[in-house]
Amino acid sequence: MRQTEWKLAPLDEARERFLREVRFSPSVESVPVLQAHDRVTAKPVVARRSVPEWPLAAMDGVAVRAEMTVQAAPDNPVRLSLGREAVWIDTGDPLPDFADTIIPVEQIGVVDEKQVEVFNPVPSWKHIRTVGEDVCAGETILPPCHRIRPIDLGVMLAAGVEKVSVWQPPRVAVIPTGNELVMPGQAPERGQIVESNGTVISGYLREWGAIPDYRGIVPDEPDHLIQAVQSSVKKCDMVVLNAGSSAGSEDYTVSVIRKLGRVVQHGVATRPGKPVILGIVEGKPVVGLPGYPVSSYLGLQWFVRPLIEKWFGIPIGGANEIRVRLGADVVVKTGAEDFVRVALGEVRGEMVAYPLAKGAGVASSLSRADGWLRVPTDHHGWKAGERVTVELIRPRGSWENRLLVAGEPDVGLDVLAGQIASQIPGSTLLPLPMGQEEGWRLLREGRCHLVLLAGDISVTGEAETKDASCVRIHGWSRVRGWMMRSDPGHQSIAEWLRRGAQLLIHPCGTRSRQWLEAQLADWGIIPEDMRGCNRVAANDRQIAAAIAAGSADIGIGCPAVAREFGLLFVPAWEEDVQFVVPKDWLRSSMGRLLMEALQSCSFRMCLEMLGGYRCGKSGEKIGSL
Amino acid sequence: MRQTEWKLAPLDEARERFLREVRFSPSVESVPVLQAHDRVTAKPVVARRSVPEWPLAAMDGVAVRAEMTVQAAPDNPVRLSLGREAVWIDTGDPLPDFADTIIPVEQIGVVDEKQVEVFNPVPSWKHIRTVGEDVCAGETILPPCHRIRPIDLGVMLAAGVEKVSVWQPPRVAVIPTGNELVMPGQAPERGQIVESNGTVISGYLREWGAIPDYRGIVPDEPDHLIQAVQSSVKKCDMVVLNAGSSAGSEDYTVSVIRKLGRVVQHGVATRPGKPVILGIVEGKPVVGLPGYPVSSYLGLQWFVRPLIEKWFGIPIGGANEIRVRLGADVVVKTGAEDFVRVALGEVRGEMVAYPLAKGAGVASSLSRADGWLRVPTDHHGWKAGERVTVELIRPRGSWENRLLVAGEPDVGLDVLAGQIASQIPGSTLLPLPMGQEEGWRLLREGRCHLVLLAGDISVTGEAETKDASCVRIHGWSRVRGWMMRSDPGHQSIAEWLRRGAQLLIHPCGTRSRQWLEAQLADWGIIPEDMRGCNRVAANDRQIAAAIAAGSADIGIGCPAVAREFGLLFVPAWEEDVQFVVPKDWLRSSMGRLLMEALQSCSFRMCLEMLGGYRCGKSGEKIGSL
Repeated sequence: MRQTEWKLAPLDEARERFLREVRFSPSVESVPVLQAHDRVTAKPVVARRSVPEWPLAAMDGVAVRAEMTVQAAPDNPVRLSLGREAVWIDTGDPLPDFADTIIPVEQIGVVDEKQVEVFNPVPSWKHIRTVGEDVCAGETILPPCHRIRPIDLGVMLAAGVEKVSVWQPPRVAVIPTGNELVMPGQAPERGQIVESNGTVISGYLREWGAIPDYRGIVPDEPDHLIQAVQSSVKKCDMVVLNAGSSAGSEDYTVSVIRKLGRVVQHGVATRPGKPVILGIVEGKPVVGLPGYPVSSYLGLQWFVRPLIEKWFGIPIGGANEIRVRLGADVVVKTGAEDFVRVALGEVRGEMVAYPLAKGAGVASSLSRADGWLRVPTDHHGWKAGERVTVELIRPRGSWENRLLVAGEPDVGLDVLAGQIASQIPGSTLLPLPMGQEEGWRLLREGRCHLVLLAGDISVTGEAETKDASCVRIHGWSRVRGWMMRSDPGHQSIAEWLRRGAQLLIHPCGTRSRQWLEAQLADWGIIPEDMRGCNRVAANDRQIAAAIAAGSADIGIGCPAVAREFGLLFVPAWEEDVQFVVPKDWLRSSMGRLLMEALQSCSFRMCLEMLGGYRCGKSGEKIGSL
Repeated sequence: MRQTEWKLAPLDEARERFLREVRFSPSVESVPVLQAHDRVTAKPVVARRSVPEWPLAAMDGVAVRAEMTVQAAPDNPVRLSLGREAVWIDTGDPLPDFADTIIPVEQIGVVDEKQVEVFNPVPSWKHIRTVGEDVCAGETILPPCHRIRPIDLGVMLAAGVEKVSVWQPPRVAVIPTGNELVMPGQAPERGQIVESNGTVISGYLREWGAIPDYRGIVPDEPDHLIQAVQSSVKKCDMVVLNAGSSAGSEDYTVSVIRKLGRVVQHGVATRPGKPVILGIVEGKPVVGLPGYPVSSYLGLQWFVRPLIEKWFGIPIGGANEIRVRLGADVVVKTGAEDFVRVALGEVRGEMVAYPLAKGAGVASSLSRADGWLRVPTDHHGWKAGERVTVELIRPRGSWENRLLVAGEPDVGLDVLAGQIASQIPGSTLLPLPMGQEEGWRLLREGRCHLVLLAGDISVTGEAETKDASCVRIHGWSRVRGWMMRSDPGHQSIAEWLRRGAQLLIHPCGTRSRQWLEAQLADWGIIPEDMRGCNRVAANDRQIAAAIAAGSADIGIGCPAVAREFGLLFVPAWEEDVQFVVPKDWLRSSMGRLLMEALQSCSFRMCLEMLGGYRCGKSGEKIGSL
């Protein structure tokens, strides 16, 4: 049947084998230095001129002949006539022929316009930049296979190099395949998806110095694929195929590569990223990347990037790693290397990493990620609190001003994130949606900056009264209720649920979940009775999106999100939302940023404008716990 | 007089004060997503569409309604008719309306073309990517002040975002000033230098996302400068002036800025980089960078880069640091922060850093550097062997295949460097020219990979016979002798030297120095008698360059370099050159690379072609010490 039989290879082994089989012979071109930024040298670059070319003054002063000063003494200054025996000279000026040393201006006495005095003998060749001090003609100033940076342009220009031999960049065909794909800008119909991987692939290729050749969408038909690969192989140095997400298109890719050339490897033992295809057609590498955005990204980094590196003979950037503490458990299955996306934050001077969504389709989590956590094949993962090494994909410092907020999910946090970003550019907020009790534990263990609590807070608060190091701060009040696509008609919500209306629920321990469970118990509905009882969504927006798309009927949410998705909203209760914050953190720059944001007019206005929110007391301290 | 009176400010303080005084109000423009790579978001980017927009299959299999499978058991399979009750579905296909779960293909039995069998009950909503799993409509997918990477393009396209609001990049005027400057491509006459800093500055500005506006060379005259600054301030958002290296032009810059606006700071307490000028003209920042290439580079990084960061509201890359062991002493004066360029290498699994040339004019050392060692104001430096933190300016890994060769300087090492680079792209060779004894110590202490010895090697070797862990390898034989501009005429070299011919000599402990000292002693010449006896140059090429330029008369060197600089060569002796290498290192990949290079035909041919070299035994082992 449609089942594919692969023999998966470990990632590193597959890459090594593939790279060994690929042979490149890039052409060399000669380009003017002024256009050589970011190109890669093909040969050593040799200085044509020495720098400096003549001896130059390294100080302001007078140029003299050292032997003229031999008799000089503080009580017996030697007078030198300007023009003949001494010449005023500025830093960088060439040394006059007669002179062999410079006396700094501070050590010179001025007699008149024609004479200066020297008070001590001076050695020869002092304060002079000698010929070739910087670069000697004939010296190698850049090695081969070196990516030319702006500073290298400066050295070449100074050393009289006008043209430089560089590798011609590889031309890489990018072929998205799949019947379900539509071009960016077109509105996808049901079952279609916008082709976006091709743009991502082309962007990285350009960053790495290659020339992407985007060939447009090719339908999932062997003949079309064959034609596309054949014409690409003629015109380009490498080919990247990006399968649609269906298993079908992948199979076509394998058989097409097998028909036109040969398949070096199909499938690597990684999660995500497994269905990669590595082939060679007419001596040129052809890489089939999986269709899921995250798998496609990983395959690109694992196999295409090394091809570009091999072409130019240089590594593209180096791995940049950081040791961090895990903020949450990471649990994976064995049998394949797992690549887990993580977001980072700094709490009490320590880096904390949180795993993001796992799905290979979840490109947004990749866009949000700061780095990768690589879990070896035979490893089950780690517990929260353990130390692990993360490979960074963002520059360090990106997470310096990031607020980690555990606890109740709330749309208000989006508005708060916007506010802190406008106060201090680059500051961000990472919500860690979870039950309130769990959020408490994170705060106590220094794995987040603050916790968001909602509802009957005094209870939770009292349980923690002992903790006097924390303070409670008013967030806002919010209206909560039922979101649904249409009126349930003559029946009550309770009846509708009993009759099988599909319910989508918030995660365990959240206030919305607690309220809902109490309400259902009141109505005598046991959750296990209902269809969809096992369907949990992270927040109001995910619930609303599912209801709007018809894959659920009803769920708890807020009026703002319901309106956004064109849903009906039936209010059920109103409650306060509070932050719990360590007192000492509140005095830090991030703590002050939070307080300013909560108390700002623009934050309150923006949140109240959403509807269902009141911010009269936002930012007021309620007191210690 | 011409002496300038500055009140130097500490670097960090000057920067903070300057940045506080600068106000930007960049414009926002809306660009299509496909053109937004590397631009910086001005507002949060919000998803227009959920991803996925409909529930999608996450596995290949059949889509069914879960309740149809309640009765299924291995011994009592439930049959479902295809089309009505079950539909074959591929990963990524939209879920049919009637279905609420997917059964993977492996768990399905095929009865015939019309029916399939299920052997177990399945829960609803399994193997389905729910609506909004990746992104929910209305969700913020990118924060403001975020530099857009290729992966972000993918997320925006998938989420239906077609245009994105980004900051207009700042336009930065780049004005090189100085009468001594000539444009790149022109041949400089005596006293002129090629304008190269402007190209370097423009290159970095472009890398950082700004638009450089190169205004051409402005002569050192107040009127010209005033005009240039005035017109730049009108057209651009920031101005960078790059003084010629003379103190004169700097003074003009200060007075021009003072006349047109105000000077926030003149001079910072750093070495190099001191004479920086920070000013504001008509509300726009004007930065005067020093003329020396290294100072100009540092000033650009210290003051212009933060301006660009402030404009966009984001850090540009993060500091990337590494802990290393010092290979040599670093000694600096107190009173200013010192920035020492270092080159890195890996010896016995440990990173070693070597300080490079100190002069601010020595741009080539900056091009060669891997990073900066920052020495605080009140610090004298460190001893070899101490651990220090280096701020990297090259990607990690750039120094992985770098051969550290201590000892005798020899042009043959250039040829060897070319050979290893052609064998393994990206491998480099860092010569550490020093006396032979000193080289030995480095090798013993694990601060270099191998030592180059020349001349009467058995003596040195015997002193070290105890060290059986090392092996000697033939390098080549070389002819050494006198290099001079012209024939000394009827007199002998000895006579010429006695009469004051200027001699340039190699560093202490090198073979050339030893031979020369012995020869001079033979001739009864005491070095202190001679002019220029204190003039040391690092290698043959620097000596030849000085002689060719007329700033010295004679020195020791090799025929190849003498010919390169059009000098006369009088052979004096021939000697063997050998490498001393630890036995275990020789078995490493770098060790094998060295041996292959020495034994290769192309290396031998290239070196012998230079003239004065013989490579008959290159790469032969001579035996243990």
